[in-house]
Amino acid sequence: MRAYDVIKKKRDGEALSAEEIGDFLEAFTEGEIPDYQAAALLMAVYFRGLGRDELQAWTQAMLESGDVLDLSEVPGVKVDKHSTGGVGDKVSICLAPLAAACGVRVPMISGRGLGHTGGTLDKLGSIPGFRVDLDVARYRELVTSVGACLIGQTDQLAPADRKLYALRDVTATVESIPLIAASIMSKKLAEGIDGLVLDVKVGAGAFMKDLSSAKELARTMVAIGRSMDKKVVALLTDMEQPLGKTVGNALEVTEAIDVLRGSGPPDLVEVTLALGVEMLGLADLAHGAPARELLARAIDDGRAFEKLQKIVEAQGGDPASLEEGGKGLPKASLQEPLPAAAKGFVTALDAELVGRAAVLLGAGRETLDAAVDPAVGLVLAAKMGDAVEVGQPLCTLHANDPKRLAEAKEMLGRAWTLGGAAPPKRPLVIERVTG
Amino acid sequence: MRAYDVIKKKRDGEALSAEEIGDFLEAFTEGEIPDYQAAALLMAVYFRGLGRDELQAWTQAMLESGDVLDLSEVPGVKVDKHSTGGVGDKVSICLAPLAAACGVRVPMISGRGLGHTGGTLDKLGSIPGFRVDLDVARYRELVTSVGACLIGQTDQLAPADRKLYALRDVTATVESIPLIAASIMSKKLAEGIDGLVLDVKVGAGAFMKDLSSAKELARTMVAIGRSMDKKVVALLTDMEQPLGKTVGNALEVTEAIDVLRGSGPPDLVEVTLALGVEMLGLADLAHGAPARELLARAIDDGRAFEKLQKIVEAQGGDPASLEEGGKGLPKASLQEPLPAAAKGFVTALDAELVGRAAVLLGAGRETLDAAVDPAVGLVLAAKMGDAVEVGQPLCTLHANDPKRLAEAKEMLGRAWTLGGAAPPKRPLVIERVTG
Repeated sequence: MRAYDVIKKKRDGEALSAEEIGDFLEAFTEGEIPDYQAAALLMAVYFRGLGRDELQAWTQAMLESGDVLDLSEVPGVKVDKHSTGGVGDKVSICLAPLAAACGVRVPMISGRGLGHTGGTLDKLGSIPGFRVDLDVARYRELVTSVGACLIGQTDQLAPADRKLYALRDVTATVESIPLIAASIMSKKLAEGIDGLVLDVKVGAGAFMKDLSSAKELARTMVAIGRSMDKKVVALLTDMEQPLGKTVGNALEVTEAIDVLRGSGPPDLVEVTLALGVEMLGLADLAHGAPARELLARAIDDGRAFEKLQKIVEAQGGDPASLEEGGKGLPKASLQEPLPAAAKGFVTALDAELVGRAAVLLGAGRETLDAAVDPAVGLVLAAKMGDAVEVGQPLCTLHANDPKRLAEAKEMLGRAWTLGGAAPPKRPLVIERVTG
Repeated sequence: MRAYDVIKKKRDGEALSAEEIGDFLEAFTEGEIPDYQAAALLMAVYFRGLGRDELQAWTQAMLESGDVLDLSEVPGVKVDKHSTGGVGDKVSICLAPLAAACGVRVPMISGRGLGHTGGTLDKLGSIPGFRVDLDVARYRELVTSVGACLIGQTDQLAPADRKLYALRDVTATVESIPLIAASIMSKKLAEGIDGLVLDVKVGAGAFMKDLSSAKELARTMVAIGRSMDKKVVALLTDMEQPLGKTVGNALEVTEAIDVLRGSGPPDLVEVTLALGVEMLGLADLAHGAPARELLARAIDDGRAFEKLQKIVEAQGGDPASLEEGGKGLPKASLQEPLPAAAKGFVTALDAELVGRAAVLLGAGRETLDAAVDPAVGLVLAAKMGDAVEVGQPLCTLHANDPKRLAEAKEMLGRAWTLGGAAPPKRPLVIERVTG
């Protein structure tokens, strides 16, 4: 394999063989193919795409560049959920214990937040003592004994993807659906799962702004999963406005507790249940309405919240900190409402702006090595369709720094659009993609 | 300017501003933008192309990355000729003295040969003593006093193009018409010329295999020239078979002498005169038929050949070596005919294979630092349309190494295609492109 020939072939729109893809990505990961040749190939893939066989080979090559965890000794069907990322998306923290309480084995490897969307690891990090750096043996043990374990990514999983992603990030080749799909699927399949439920966010606050791209991404990921003999289902869910009422790490954990205690906001509950039904389905424990009932019962009888406490305890955290609406979670020193400047119905709520305001407060990071403040963020008081009066709070900001508070407040002033009438209600779960 | 933004903009099909192009190429040349970002931009340009304003800015940036020679003190109109490269293309050696003998100032900066096409510098290098490494002051002086000067490229001319070309060569982004056009034009415009005649070769032996690409390249280069206020004309000329009868350095100089003495092969004479008419036209000395008569007269009365001798003498060569059909030029020790294996008409003569056989004999190079044997090459005895009998020579090989001779002979055995009837005659000058 000559790197030049592979680039030229893809440039000319021909399909690469599995061997060519495997050899190229292996040599790139080993540093034998220079970045500039990989950059040229990535841009050619951006324009030419990857066919089904190429995608499988590409994902396989990234998967095989590192460790693939073996959970075959863990009894039961192992099912994970992955979201393409949104603002206020704390679904993993509700869903992992909820599905585990219903008998699904949930091995979940999550990432840190970057840019305007938060990361599950940062949210979990707000729970005192909670550790996400467990080793593989302990991870395997907890998936077996507790039923779920939530840890961070290691350098050993899909290192080719990490190296390739860093290059894509500086060569304007991130926004390629096959490359996004292969990147996500290689990391998820390295977890050793049997099934995967994908939450593909679509809307202004998501990476995929329009339905057709989101659908294509969902279909592509489902196809990759199928080609690697994994059960994969994707739901397209709305991310035109933030999910739930909170944005910020400890605030979002509190809201996840609300869901598990039966008092969560309707949109967050709905997305959690819809994804939970799919997880139970892939685990073949129950399907459709009966699955939904199982989930509701686990919430009603307290097993779901107890499971969260068990997960937290097993991973070194303080389960008591979650009692009474998260009494032991960090709280911000300053709380200030943002009053509505006019009267009207909320016709738009810019999720990206809300996410950026949360980052400004310290809840997220712009660069990978920045620190995160677990306590800060905001609680939304008015969402799309709500009627507000002049002076009524649109949200409450939680901050530890007055200067940042002022800046975030100014930014948030532009996040709400008010109109004379409520906009038509948007469906939360837009479409189900199964292949 | 952020390199990322420039790549993304071009990737998305938007036009780059002159400032963005200038800043990117300057930073790349200075080493401030890494190769991988330039590679991504080049591949995006491959797919998206460059508009007229972008092309001008791109050419300008490469031009300004180095010295632009100032020939304003040289009296008269300075006109150069550039060929996109072919097999047996010794036109520059005929044309520079011929046009200079008619009053055109010819500042000609040429390259070395690479791959299956030869380079003017290597051909000139077969003349004993001839130097192509003159400094700019001497170059300017000779264009004034002799009327023509033929030198090699210096590191000071368009360094951005050199660096970019090396990257294109390993990232499969050479075959982009705007990038080819900008590369050629930046180097030529750095010579300090007023006008340029382009010989765009088209056919199996040329870089442009089909007429439509050749025409697009010609139009693109003419447009760049116009946008930079230079007079540019392009002729598309046939390169389906080698031009003239000789391939190899000293052999081609001998054939150029034949043209200047009035005994050149008709195809080479025709292309030389057609390009010469354009040079005289751009210099506004004569146009059309009267220009052709001026050129014919300069050959007939010996001024053209004398001018070649003057050029050779001025550049340190031995003018006597050109007498009596190039008696002082190096000769190969072995000469062997390639006999026809069948009887018939030559229906095809593979220029690329002929060029590669000449490289095999030592007349050209595969890598830039390889040495060239000035004496070796071949003389064609049968060209397209010619009738041959069994055993009649198709060509004579000139070699200094029996092993290479045998290998080249075997390769040349596949270069001729014989058929039952002569193919239709192809026009030599296919089209004239003026904008």
